[in-house]
Amino acid sequence: MKPHQILEILQGVATGALTPEQALSDLAELPYADLGFAKLDFHRELRNGHPEAVYGEGKTLDDLEKIVARMLEAHGRALVTRLRPEAADRLRERFPTTVWHERARILTCGDPPERKGGTIAVLAAGTSDLPVAEEAAVCADWFGHDVHRCWDVGIAGLHRLLGNLQDIRRADVVIAVAGMDGALPTVVASLVPAPVVAVPTSVGYGASFGGIAPLLTMLNGCAPGIGVVNIDNGYGAAVLASRIARAAGRG
Amino acid sequence: MKPHQILEILQGVATGALTPEQALSDLAELPYADLGFAKLDFHRELRNGHPEAVYGEGKTLDDLEKIVARMLEAHGRALVTRLRPEAADRLRERFPTTVWHERARILTCGDPPERKGGTIAVLAAGTSDLPVAEEAAVCADWFGHDVHRCWDVGIAGLHRLLGNLQDIRRADVVIAVAGMDGALPTVVASLVPAPVVAVPTSVGYGASFGGIAPLLTMLNGCAPGIGVVNIDNGYGAAVLASRIARAAGRG
Amino acid sequence: MKPHQILEILQGVATGALTPEQALSDLAELPYADLGFAKLDFHRELRNGHPEAVYGEGKTLDDLEKIVARMLEAHGRALVTRLRPEAADRLRERFPTTVWHERARILTCGDPPERKGGTIAVLAAGTSDLPVAEEAAVCADWFGHDVHRCWDVGIAGLHRLLGNLQDIRRADVVIAVAGMDGALPTVVASLVPAPVVAVPTSVGYGASFGGIAPLLTMLNGCAPGIGVVNIDNGYGAAVLASRIARAAGRG
Amino acid sequence: MKPHQILEILQGVATGALTPEQALSDLAELPYADLGFAKLDFHRELRNGHPEAVYGEGKTLDDLEKIVARMLEAHGRALVTRLRPEAADRLRERFPTTVWHERARILTCGDPPERKGGTIAVLAAGTSDLPVAEEAAVCADWFGHDVHRCWDVGIAGLHRLLGNLQDIRRADVVIAVAGMDGALPTVVASLVPAPVVAVPTSVGYGASFGGIAPLLTMLNGCAPGIGVVNIDNGYGAAVLASRIARAAGRG
Amino acid sequence: MKPHQILEILQGVATGALTPEQALSDLAELPYADLGFAKLDFHRELRNGHPEAVYGEGKTLDDLEKIVARMLEAHGRALVTRLRPEAADRLRERFPTTVWHERARILTCGDPPERKGGTIAVLAAGTSDLPVAEEAAVCADWFGHDVHRCWDVGIAGLHRLLGNLQDIRRADVVIAVAGMDGALPTVVASLVPAPVVAVPTSVGYGASFGGIAPLLTMLNGCAPGIGVVNIDNGYGAAVLASRIARAAGRG
Amino acid sequence: MKPHQILEILQGVATGALTPEQALSDLAELPYADLGFAKLDFHRELRNGHPEAVYGEGKTLDDLEKIVARMLEAHGRALVTRLRPEAADRLRERFPTTVWHERARILTCGDPPERKGGTIAVLAAGTSDLPVAEEAAVCADWFGHDVHRCWDVGIAGLHRLLGNLQDIRRADVVIAVAGMDGALPTVVASLVPAPVVAVPTSVGYGASFGGIAPLLTMLNGCAPGIGVVNIDNGYGAAVLASRIARAAGRG
Amino acid sequence: MKPHQILEILQGVATGALTPEQALSDLAELPYADLGFAKLDFHRELRNGHPEAVYGEGKTLDDLEKIVARMLEAHGRALVTRLRPEAADRLRERFPTTVWHERARILTCGDPPERKGGTIAVLAAGTSDLPVAEEAAVCADWFGHDVHRCWDVGIAGLHRLLGNLQDIRRADVVIAVAGMDGALPTVVASLVPAPVVAVPTSVGYGASFGGIAPLLTMLNGCAPGIGVVNIDNGYGAAVLASRIARAAGRG
Amino acid sequence: MKPHQILEILQGVATGALTPEQALSDLAELPYADLGFAKLDFHRELRNGHPEAVYGEGKTLDDLEKIVARMLEAHGRALVTRLRPEAADRLRERFPTTVWHERARILTCGDPPERKGGTIAVLAAGTSDLPVAEEAAVCADWFGHDVHRCWDVGIAGLHRLLGNLQDIRRADVVIAVAGMDGALPTVVASLVPAPVVAVPTSVGYGASFGGIAPLLTMLNGCAPGIGVVNIDNGYGAAVLASRIARAAGRG
Repeated sequence: MKPHQILEILQGVATGALTPEQALSDLAELPYADLGFAKLDFHRELRNGHPEAVYGEGKTLDDLEKIVARMLEAHGRALVTRLRPEAADRLRERFPTTVWHERARILTCGDPPERKGGTIAVLAAGTSDLPVAEEAAVCADWFGHDVHRCWDVGIAGLHRLLGNLQDIRRADVVIAVAGMDGALPTVVASLVPAPVVAVPTSVGYGASFGGIAPLLTMLNGCAPGIGVVNIDNGYGAAVLASRIARAAGRG
Repeated sequence: MKPHQILEILQGVATGALTPEQALSDLAELPYADLGFAKLDFHRELRNGHPEAVYGEGKTLDDLEKIVARMLEAHGRALVTRLRPEAADRLRERFPTTVWHERARILTCGDPPERKGGTIAVLAAGTSDLPVAEEAAVCADWFGHDVHRCWDVGIAGLHRLLGNLQDIRRADVVIAVAGMDGALPTVVASLVPAPVVAVPTSVGYGASFGGIAPLLTMLNGCAPGIGVVNIDNGYGAAVLASRIARAAGRG
Repeated sequence: MKPHQILEILQGVATGALTPEQALSDLAELPYADLGFAKLDFHRELRNGHPEAVYGEGKTLDDLEKIVARMLEAHGRALVTRLRPEAADRLRERFPTTVWHERARILTCGDPPERKGGTIAVLAAGTSDLPVAEEAAVCADWFGHDVHRCWDVGIAGLHRLLGNLQDIRRADVVIAVAGMDGALPTVVASLVPAPVVAVPTSVGYGASFGGIAPLLTMLNGCAPGIGVVNIDNGYGAAVLASRIARAAGRG
Repeated sequence: MKPHQILEILQGVATGALTPEQALSDLAELPYADLGFAKLDFHRELRNGHPEAVYGEGKTLDDLEKIVARMLEAHGRALVTRLRPEAADRLRERFPTTVWHERARILTCGDPPERKGGTIAVLAAGTSDLPVAEEAAVCADWFGHDVHRCWDVGIAGLHRLLGNLQDIRRADVVIAVAGMDGALPTVVASLVPAPVVAVPTSVGYGASFGGIAPLLTMLNGCAPGIGVVNIDNGYGAAVLASRIARAAGRG
Repeated sequence: MKPHQILEILQGVATGALTPEQALSDLAELPYADLGFAKLDFHRELRNGHPEAVYGEGKTLDDLEKIVARMLEAHGRALVTRLRPEAADRLRERFPTTVWHERARILTCGDPPERKGGTIAVLAAGTSDLPVAEEAAVCADWFGHDVHRCWDVGIAGLHRLLGNLQDIRRADVVIAVAGMDGALPTVVASLVPAPVVAVPTSVGYGASFGGIAPLLTMLNGCAPGIGVVNIDNGYGAAVLASRIARAAGRG
Repeated sequence: MKPHQILEILQGVATGALTPEQALSDLAELPYADLGFAKLDFHRELRNGHPEAVYGEGKTLDDLEKIVARMLEAHGRALVTRLRPEAADRLRERFPTTVWHERARILTCGDPPERKGGTIAVLAAGTSDLPVAEEAAVCADWFGHDVHRCWDVGIAGLHRLLGNLQDIRRADVVIAVAGMDGALPTVVASLVPAPVVAVPTSVGYGASFGGIAPLLTMLNGCAPGIGVVNIDNGYGAAVLASRIARAAGRG
Repeated sequence: MKPHQILEILQGVATGALTPEQALSDLAELPYADLGFAKLDFHRELRNGHPEAVYGEGKTLDDLEKIVARMLEAHGRALVTRLRPEAADRLRERFPTTVWHERARILTCGDPPERKGGTIAVLAAGTSDLPVAEEAAVCADWFGHDVHRCWDVGIAGLHRLLGNLQDIRRADVVIAVAGMDGALPTVVASLVPAPVVAVPTSVGYGASFGGIAPLLTMLNGCAPGIGVVNIDNGYGAAVLASRIARAAGRG
Repeated sequence: MKPHQILEILQGVATGALTPEQALSDLAELPYADLGFAKLDFHRELRNGHPEAVYGEGKTLDDLEKIVARMLEAHGRALVTRLRPEAADRLRERFPTTVWHERARILTCGDPPERKGGTIAVLAAGTSDLPVAEEAAVCADWFGHDVHRCWDVGIAGLHRLLGNLQDIRRADVVIAVAGMDGALPTVVASLVPAPVVAVPTSVGYGASFGGIAPLLTMLNGCAPGIGVVNIDNGYGAAVLASRIARAAGRG
């Protein structure tokens, strides 16, 4: 898929280092590790800049152990999201360098992040939005960026947001997490020039419909400059923000 | 239904002024005018304070004429909503005291409103929300209240709203009209102590779903003190606001 | 945000009592208490007339204790909604003046309410709607209004509603709580002149869809004068009714 | 399918009047007329008591003419629903005994209905519901029942309904047609002992969602005894009511 | 509400047996028993032919006991639906004449039903639909009708339905219960002349959406003659069928 | 993408016929024609057996002409679906071998189909489903299969379906097209052993919701063996059926 | 239903071997076993090629035992899907030839499958999709086809899919199982000529809505050749694929 | 809102250049132009980097002229989106520097854009997605960025996308526009390291539901790094991409 890799293979054929048949086999054998029940995509970091993360929900303890071990071997580090506490306990016993981020339900493991530059502000509208906001913040830190947390700044008390505006304006990208009416990202996007990553949460009840209400609010925001991710998807917000922050750092 | 009316009828029976059979017939004959295709509810003003309005959509010109004539006869005035311009032209020819409110698509006809006291602020988030906001404002005025219009104060430019806040705080009740993200009523309710009547509009596109997005935002507003009416229902907002303003005026 | 506060600060600058830099800092430091995980909005009562309530769902016992303690310190009283019984037990041990309203799942704590005037009638269509109706009634009482409860008056037996109509007509505002078909608020609004706050509940099954059915009925009510709040939102209904009752009391 | 028909065929085989092969062919040839683009089901009346009606929407003039001609030939009468006026004009020219029911958009043609007994009351909540209510009423009459029309008796003015209750109670079955909040059938079912056929209409706007709101109200009615048909389906309501009235007549 | 009752009261006034004030009080005191948390509607049987049933879900044991005792006192019999087994145990101890219908989750108590005539066939498409079908069948029997049960006759094996068709055709009304595709009522309505009451169930998974799929199928059935009730609403189906069967019996 | 093509290129490099750079360029230049506004995918037939079809909706006359001309040049034939009549007229003038299938809104052009074997039965539940059913039938014929059309065999008159069952059982695959209740494919799948391709149509009204009702019915069919395609997607049904028929022909 | 069976019966009548009455009875007695609560459809295999499977969800242990015993008696084998582990344990004790497929939650029992020919490739996008994919694979094997499993080949790492493409292209039919974005079947259908059976899974969170998101993606796939089954319906996918593979084997 | 502006005003008060009353008035008079029906937000560019755009839909010709004239006066340039052709004609007559972008339905007017650096790739899945993709591309260019257009690269022919991958990888941010299955952004995000802005379009039919299907696909994409904007919102995508490109340019 990566032209330069294909070119290398082709040059191998041209120089006789590879037979055409070997080359075809190589093209089909881009790096992934087949564990039988899973194919770990070691190529992902080369392709788009972030190694594969492990989604913890619904995986057995044995599967998690095997995957994390193989990840550490390949990358020297691993990130597991949506992990239940008892699984975290087992992995912490097995892998000594592990850190358990309780509110974020994230386990990180292995080498500390290489600093990539760029600052990411993470905002939460209410205290119930904290698990999702922390998921975003922990991931953003793990990807190597400076993270500025700003909790409980929903629009029911605008002065709480306005009082923190100067700090928020310093970030290269803002992640705004909100449930219920989901209006925070729109207000933020109207006040700062940075791109805003909006994360609806399933916090709320009744006509919130598990996060549909804030999701729609964010998609219909009257202030442009917002990109929306899936409901409760703190991890996805961090990846998008990291791609933006890298662009800012690289620029 | 109205105890004092029933009591009068019963007293008529007790005094012999009415036979039981006549009384039963009277109880079944509470005042409405049967036009065959419609039963005009002349009793409504006595019951809940507002005479029946005429919903113009889908009615033929002939039906409209008959209904308005009968309304004028009974109440001395009439209000027609959602009227198409050509129907308005015909009614203006027929009834000399008629006023046509173009943007609001409302025709009013007959005696000027008796002043009931109470001030109603009507806010519109964007210029596309004006037809609905004007429907609310014209009706509120027609019901006898002072109306303060405040257009284009959506949250994409908060200073436009904040710059008008002092005037808005003077109202007994606020009607906030918004499409797209629908966040205006929540922001207003967090800044003023008056009850807020929220009107979602079908303005927007895509995931606005004809007004569902702002409707859900308003129902899930993180600042309480908001009552929501149907999408585009400027008339209903005015009736609710009028009931509140009357309470304030009466208090 | 509040003009008179800004004016005071500006006058401080004009008289030399404040430097411009101090004034800027003051403007950013409107009163809230930062507990790290939460920013308590002490300014809210000044701004819109009701102090912040504590939403109990999903908060840890420790967080709840800290928040209630800080609320009592600032306001002398606190209201916690959607509280689970075991959390209530702990808070009652800690704070002696606490009252636990079981059916409403509300805990009130501290000074008795200052009477604000105005009467609020709270109606429930069926017995299954009582938790939501009680939430509204307890809050309305806590806000300082007279409350008239009227349970099990749904439209399947109209005479139960009509038999209580005279009492209902005495209220300044009516809160009508209903699940299933949700028709109660419309019928009430057609019979009384007061504003009606409609609360759909998630009571029902099948095509009730967790309260969507009564929510839509209320938004589409053929009798105007109704403001709808979120499904099961007894607290929000009480705040809106209280704003209206204050207007009536102030009038 | 009909046992006695199969029995007759089998007896034909037993007596030698039919060969087994002929019998098989007969079984496959239950009566329908194949027009190429349509197979008219002449067997339907025998099977369930109502001949097939012609759904006019989307059919070409030529197709309509052919179908009606063939229906008249087979049954002596035909019923066309959802017909556009210009198609009605053409059919009226061609078939002299035709009657065009404008508001109901129905064309009836051929022999007058045989009286089947049973009375059907048809109620409409508002004047905008009349096209659907008339569709039900015209069909019910065409099926041979006595029809009692009662228009504009929605719950916004309960006395209009109560004033007509005695007549309604005389019917064997009630068809209640309503848009917007759709509460009429529930109120009726709580007041009369007859079965109630509920017809939601697409009348309304905003959160009415083309009739979903009244449909849900009717399905969730707190008074039982209601059977719901599709949105705007006056014809289907009449067929169901006719089946009930026939049962009453037959009893 | 009932004219003859009002007439009696009025005659009481006319003869001096009642003062007007007493009469007004009588009119407001139509019979219901106020238990504080509930108002039992003893008037219902007179009004529409079925006494109020007790919906067991969400009621406390104490409330259930009080309600059943009061019902027995007033009517000599009581029906409780959607009852959990442990509540059934308690009520069976307290009230000796009680019968517990396990699959239907119904408890009946008191006098056996007076026979009202009319036969009701109850069909279930699959074995998973039995709880709802049994709820309908037990209620129908309790209302005094002959009940013909016909289980597992879904359209995946049409011969199972066709093999029972003669029995089904003998019924005055058919209740057809189905989840998943919900096609059974349509097929039945195309084969028999009786009215068909269709009950969608929440049986199924995935795109069944808790019963929305069969509900929509039934509303859109291409064979008319079907009245739909709420998802899983066996009780409601039985009430509607009973109203129809009474009409047939009365006819 | 196609291994043997890559192998050829690699062999070209190995033999010196291609430089690595040329090879890379070749790999990027798999056959498509870039018209600026569109990239025609000439490779598709090799890849999955059907050449690209032209979706006529929303394309300008000029664009359509250019695309068809280029298709004829590359493949000798072209298929345009969802074409408006006036565009068909223009294309018929320009390309002499064109055939216009009016009811199917399809234009075919160029060489007659090579026969691929396999028989496809296409069933339509009602006459209003014919445009979609004809789209499927015309495409299936154009792909080289024998087509058996069977119109108006919906479940409201089962004998029409059963009378045609022997012919239907002869097909290798059945396409069943239905709107409204959408029950036809389930009934067919319960009666024949061939795979059934189910096509919901947007025919219907009210709670049909533009085809959602039959779509859900088909997804929830209690008889397995059905694959569902998008609403009104006759073309997609034909492609799937053709893939199956080819498998049957190839077997 | 089956013409040749009817013909045999008719010939019995013609030869005097059967009286017409016996024949009618025979026609009504197509083979099913009535267990009271269920009617087992032994005729199904003759009719459409697959014996009835037992859906384990919600059935009691006793019912399951009875059904499986009766199935083994009639067919010599049985397949139970969606079985809970404790029920599996009981059935394994009772029936010695039983195999429990844990991840697939399937129990098979009795004679090994007769080989029917045809190869079915089963693809899973992610490891969380494995229960559904295994359900499909186990059933496909049980129906007598060769099965090629290919796990964790979602589009987030296209090279994993492309690296397995040659194997996939060898199958007669492909089952593609995917949650979240559900794009796998579309990509596969664009790369291979075989029919693709698409199975959306309820894997995902937030706006996945329990599988609606991948379901819609599959219905809207821009590459045709896909038939969609219900969410999580691995069994249904296997039946459809088996019908196709049989056609391929028969061809 | 902007601290330095407030500071200037405060310093004016401190130095006596402003009275406190004047300062308060200034604070309320942040720059916007009140046209009566609209309040133009001239402050927006200072606040978040993009001047307000004019949404053309639903505005009268007169309103458009006034707004554009005022915009040109304030900023020297103006951008009007969603403009109907006849309104474009009028504005082009009036303002000589105007350019009309037909496919994008955009009118730009006034000074050419100042180059801001950063490259934005805009991808369209199909030719029907071009209006939305062009809206994004024209806006991105107008905001001062280099734009790389890449049309018709949907996943039905992956080689068309892969053949353009090298160019796409050069961009700082990618806008991916797709209707139907909406899978393009996910595939792109799995192949490039830049942030991806995903735009669902309302292109499609049936279960596309006006763009809901691709919207859900994009929110559930299994490859992270995607921010989603509203359906058909090319303008919003361009603003978000511009904020990112500025960050990259500034970095």
